Order: sequence, then C-alpha cells, then structure tokens
Amino acid sequence: MTKNKIQYSEDIVPYSRDELIEKVRRKMSNKRFQHVLRVEDMSLILARKNNESLEKASIAALVHDYGKERPNEDYIELIKDQYLDANLLKYGNAIWHGLLGSYFIKKELQITDEEILQAVRVHTTGAAEMSRLDCILYVADYVEVGRQFSEVDKAREIAMNNLDEAVSFETEQTLLYLIQKKALVYPKTLETYNAWVAK
Amino acid sequence: MTKNKIQYSEDIVPYSRDELIEKVRRKMSNKRFQHVLRVEDMSLILARKNNESLEKASIAALVHDYGKERPNEDYIELIKDQYLDANLLKYGNAIWHGLLGSYFIKKELQITDEEILQAVRVHTTGAAEMSRLDCILYVADYVEVGRQFSEVDKAREIAMNNLDEAVSFETEQTLLYLIQKKALVYPKTLETYNAWVAK
Repeated sequence: MTKNKIQYSEDIVPYSRDELIEKVRRKMSNKRFQHVLRVEDMSLILARKNNESLEKASIAALVHDYGKERPNEDYIELIKDQYLDANLLKYGNAIWHGLLGSYFIKKELQITDEEILQAVRVHTTGAAEMSRLDCILYVADYVEVGRQFSEVDKAREIAMNNLDEAVSFETEQTLLYLIQKKALVYPKTLETYNAWVAK
Repeated sequence: MTKNKIQYSEDIVPYSRDELIEKVRRKMSNKRFQHVLRVEDMSLILARKNNESLEKASIAALVHDYGKERPNEDYIELIKDQYLDANLLKYGNAIWHGLLGSYFIKKELQITDEEILQAVRVHTTGAAEMSRLDCILYVADYVEVGRQFSEVDKAREIAMNNLDEAVSFETEQTLLYLIQKKALVYPKTLETYNAWVAK
C-alpha cells in the first residue's frame, strides 16, 4: 500500500509514522481506523498528483478523525471553556470532530503545524478559501476506496482529474444529501457552496 | 375576487386600497402586477384561515414586489449610502427587492407599519423567526394560483391545511431548487432551513 512507502523526515510530529498510527488506533474503533488508513492512501495519491507534501498529506489524513469517537461532553466543555461561538452547541460530533478536533490533536499529539490543523478543521464543511492540503483531505475523505454512495464513481473520476472540480462536486452533493435528509446544515458548508459551486 | 371585499379602515396607509393599487401598478409591468393581485388573493385566504388582519395581509401582498423592477443602481446606492453589509453587493435583485424593498416602500408609499415592512423583508428568504403575517406572505407568494412548478399542487394543499408546514415545505423546495441550478444562496435562506426544516 502507498502509505508504507512514507517515512517522516520533516519533524512535523516528534515521533515516527508508526508511533502516530498507534496513537490514532488507540482512539477509535477498528472500522474507523481502517477508514483513516484508506483516507491516507487516497490523500497520498492526490498529493502526488497535485504536488503537495506527502508527509503533510499523510499526517493530516491520519489525524483527521482523531476526535470522532470522543464523548460529546468533551466538546461541550471545550466550547464553554474556550468561549467558542455558543451556536456550536446546536451541532453534534459530525461538525465538532472537524472544527474542534484540532484542539485535541494539538494538545495530545503535539502537532502544531497550522496547515495540517487547518486541513482537519475544514475537512467536513470545506471553506470558502481552501489550501491545496485542505482540498486533498476534504476530497480524500469523500472518495476513499471504502466509500459507497450513488455518485462515488463519478466523484472519484473527477478527483483523479481535477482537485478543484472535485471540491465543487463534493460540496454540491453533500449539501443536497443533507437537505434531502433534513439535517441541520452548518453555515460554513453554505459558504463553501457559495464559493465553490454557485455561479 | 376576494380582494374586492377589502376596505381599509385601520389607517395603516394614508390613502385607500384603490390608491395603493394605483401606486403599485405604476411601478411594474402588467404581468408582475397581475401576480401581485394573485398574491393578495392568496394572502387573504391564508389570513382568514389563520386569524390574521386582512388589511395587513392585503397591504403586505400589494407592496411585496414594489422594488422588483427597480434598477440595480438604486440598490447599490442604497447599500453604500446606508452602510449596509457590503456582502449584499454580491447578490442581485432577487435578494434586494425583498430585504431592501422596504426602504422604498417606507419612503415612497409612507408605510411605516413594522409588521408589514418585516413581512416584505423576509418574503423571499424567510427567517428563523417569522410572525404569522411573515408566513402568510412568504407562502402566498409561493402558491398563488398563477404559479406553476412540479410541486405546486402539493405546496397549495399543505398551505390550505397548515401554515407552518407550508413554510417548511417551501423552504426545503426552494433550497433544493437553488442548489440544483447552482445559484448563490443567501445565508438567511439557510437560517430559515435550519429553523423550519432541519430536524
């Protein structure tokens, strides 16, 4: 697998890739951990295609769901302690693990690289302005080989050809999906849509 | 027609209904004017069903598109002169005539009733919190008898039975329609969705 070829050398994490993987594995179910490894694979493919740092792509992917299985109480406490926007309390883990997961990644994994933390912050909602690394993680999470949904083949094909178009397609499909199931939509998701999809 | 039975007596406008109709007629094409009269008809039906003031429902309906055929320059000047949110400049008449049309209604038609002005402000986007009059105008504009779109029969049936459900249905359908045509979505429309549609 692609990921096994990566050796960390940039001193972004103060330990090896194997140690990072072990720290991540301990925080989640095996099912989610396998998803994380597939997101890393896909992120590396996209990073190669788009001339992004493979090491950053690997780390961002490995930590992107680090906060996904944390209890809600951890996030509620964080929102209150850090005086974050109280509207966040209306949302749940689906929004929190992305937007706020970076707090735990910084504190517990000693990762301070702002590009990586930002890619994690926007990996669920996207953002009006996204770096290449942001786009890679956002798209890799959507099209990793384990994903199954009606438009996934089309999404993968676009991802292999044009990263920006893949961000646009994913954003449009995600918003339609959320509305069709009458789910709460975080305002940042609409900002992403208005910037990346709307004409 | 229902509307002919209305006599204004509450001193909300300093002239008769016939004079208001004449002022409105002068500001728009005949096609739009006929739409306005149909929205008034539907607003009166909904006002009767929902115990709302018929006079306010009539006035709000008659003036709701007062600013719809104004040149863009009028709105751009208004946004700049009144130091309104500069993000409004990214949108067009579809958003401006609702949100900002009330400026012209107040100034040129001497209508100062805040309930009526507010119903006009939110008649296109809706709002998280809407008064009964807001809901009546919002729904009447969507289901007036001249409207034709695939879900209109269902929308009318809901409107005849439950005003809140009609607001919810209209909001969901409108958002889906905008996304399907990749149109820019004003953030307030999402606020309406999150408040009225999302579970």
